[in-house]
Amino acid sequence: MKKSLGARTIIFPTPVLIVATYDPAGRPNAMAAAWGGICCSDPPCVAVSLREATYTYGNLMARKAFTINIPSEEYLREADYLGLVSGRNVEKFPAAGLTPAPGKSVDAPVIEEFPLVLECALLKSVRIGLHTQFIGEIKDVRAETAVLDAGGNPGIGLVKPLIFDPAGRAYYGIGPRLGQAFAAGKSIGAPPAKEGRC
Amino acid sequence: MKKSLGARTIIFPTPVLIVATYDPAGRPNAMAAAWGGICCSDPPCVAVSLREATYTYGNLMARKAFTINIPSEEYLREADYLGLVSGRNVEKFPAAGLTPAPGKSVDAPVIEEFPLVLECALLKSVRIGLHTQFIGEIKDVRAETAVLDAGGNPGIGLVKPLIFDPAGRAYYGIGPRLGQAFAAGKSIGAPPAKEGRC
Repeated sequence: MKKSLGARTIIFPTPVLIVATYDPAGRPNAMAAAWGGICCSDPPCVAVSLREATYTYGNLMARKAFTINIPSEEYLREADYLGLVSGRNVEKFPAAGLTPAPGKSVDAPVIEEFPLVLECALLKSVRIGLHTQFIGEIKDVRAETAVLDAGGNPGIGLVKPLIFDPAGRAYYGIGPRLGQAFAAGKSIGAPPAKEGRC
Repeated sequence: MKKSLGARTIIFPTPVLIVATYDPAGRPNAMAAAWGGICCSDPPCVAVSLREATYTYGNLMARKAFTINIPSEEYLREADYLGLVSGRNVEKFPAAGLTPAPGKSVDAPVIEEFPLVLECALLKSVRIGLHTQFIGEIKDVRAETAVLDAGGNPGIGLVKPLIFDPAGRAYYGIGPRLGQAFAAGKSIGAPPAKEGRC
């Protein structure tokens, strides 16, 4: 039986997205965000929601560019720190011992230590409420060669991304591989050859 | 060193969201979507992106209501199936052996077998490209009592949600708990007492 818990922001899993921008003085900044993810396949786009009060909000509005950096498990402490303090008061890169590098495709910094980064150009912003959603067109995905699998794709088990649990306010790792997508369900019924999905 | 992979839709982790709606005849339908997540804290909102070609797209536009159901690991096969076939051609609930129940707060069905559901009223839709993003205000979250932890919150380890890997097109489970959020980073530096985050 299901119990009503009220209007709350709970989805499992939720990502740990580190949004990096340049501030008006050209200093790199990075903050942790959990409200976001891919939002379009063509053009490839990612959405991330930020409160107007954040330092990143103004930076992003001004430069129209940002990167989404995916930290690996070993950078849990740094990722959490980037969500605790404001770039208004602290230069977070040196404080966290992280290294900024210029994006190759957009006017935003990339975090060298994190294995996967999406370089994004602001496509549109959507006002919702406390959060405004920024939709960025993904201009390039770059990954450390050490996390590429035999097929040349980023391996989730090599990236070792963090998972955020918004109910328990905790971080988790990736568990075991459970099955192949667009395949496991065929034992129930397969689509006609020409049918689009869903 | 980072290698450029081009403009692709890769973020780790990505959720497995089962979007349930009623069709024009009042029949329940459900489809799997991976492009979505929480997008605002106040009002609590969730975003999910759908292609216009999907059956759910029209259902959602007409009824302005949907639910986001989170399947547990044991329903991997059913969840995958819901992403393989279209409600235009198949009644997916009986085909998958799933049970629809009316939402308590919105005019959309809930999947009884899945442990966690967000009942959502359409707030706005945002055209992006191949995908249109639907932003729903979360009217209620309901969870099976069996997945509530001692504090009355849905436990991620009890829900056992699926994680979708868009690079490897595979499903994963949740791994070990790695740390407490808004706490682990304090060893690097804590915010002043009155500072907002980020």
